[in-house]
Amino acid sequence: MRAYLAGPDIFLPDAVAWAERKKSVCARYGLIGVSPLDDMPEAPEWAGLPEWRCIALRNEALIRSCDLMIANLTPFRGPSADVGTVYEVGFMRALGRPVFGYATTAVGFTQRTLNSARAVEGPDGTLRDGEGLLIEQFGLFDNLMIEAGIVASGGALVVEEIAAEHRWTDLSVFEHCVRIATSG
Amino acid sequence: MRAYLAGPDIFLPDAVAWAERKKSVCARYGLIGVSPLDDMPEAPEWAGLPEWRCIALRNEALIRSCDLMIANLTPFRGPSADVGTVYEVGFMRALGRPVFGYATTAVGFTQRTLNSARAVEGPDGTLRDGEGLLIEQFGLFDNLMIEAGIVASGGALVVEEIAAEHRWTDLSVFEHCVRIATSG
Repeated sequence: MRAYLAGPDIFLPDAVAWAERKKSVCARYGLIGVSPLDDMPEAPEWAGLPEWRCIALRNEALIRSCDLMIANLTPFRGPSADVGTVYEVGFMRALGRPVFGYATTAVGFTQRTLNSARAVEGPDGTLRDGEGLLIEQFGLFDNLMIEAGIVASGGALVVEEIAAEHRWTDLSVFEHCVRIATSG
Repeated sequence: MRAYLAGPDIFLPDAVAWAERKKSVCARYGLIGVSPLDDMPEAPEWAGLPEWRCIALRNEALIRSCDLMIANLTPFRGPSADVGTVYEVGFMRALGRPVFGYATTAVGFTQRTLNSARAVEGPDGTLRDGEGLLIEQFGLFDNLMIEAGIVASGGALVVEEIAAEHRWTDLSVFEHCVRIATSG
């Protein structure tokens, strides 16, 4: 079974070495970890395209080559997960294959949004940000499309509170997620 | 032709009335606008599911019922687009149908990220945030998966600078995008 390892981990220093560590965890559970940084034979139609288009087309091809996805949904530069990762989660969900997600914080979406945005409570008890846009209050971990997509795909979401300074270098929550993904 | 109108517009006050205004613009160009707030016959397997799961399953069904997508990618509570919208962009891209995107700011992704994150320049000229994570410098409008997915899908991205106070209530950029989507 091939598992696409989605996440902003690609932006970490020594990202290739980090991906190898995640692949080692996968291997211990009989899973082949596939990193967005892995090589992929270039399709003829990619010739001459700019680097950013080749990266995206390669990632999409790598996702299509996998049986499932394990996505790092740790909040990234704001209340929500990295949008590149979320794009891939939606992509895999449309392919009908299981998506597993994890995050190294357990603080909920509503609270994280309130931590970063000025909020006003309306007469109906709903919360709105400074621009009047509604703040989701479903008691979920992120925007409902993500969590509902994961559940509907047959995957699972694992969130655990890790000390902030280890948020991007902890592997325990990832391993917990791999364990669940391979215990079916 | 049915066009799914993705975007954080669903969080606006009077979101249903707003969706009707967007549908009117679509109608002028011969397009049927489909809002995430539209009714959809409930599938039998949705019975008893919590509201957030029904909303997500309905949105996915509405997307599948459409020929193309027009996504509001205006930055939302951070440097990037709303993650719910981006999930839907990735979903539609995996279905192989065209995705058109628009935004009411023309400031690029790198600059928006620098505006919101403390950045450090490495010896190799790359920029990293305060946690050491790389800041993309491709000269794009958002994370490369989004823009590359739109281009590869046969769609287009339209960004125009609108005064901040009209960022969520302007319809001119949306209309420009609809015009392009229907001029093929």
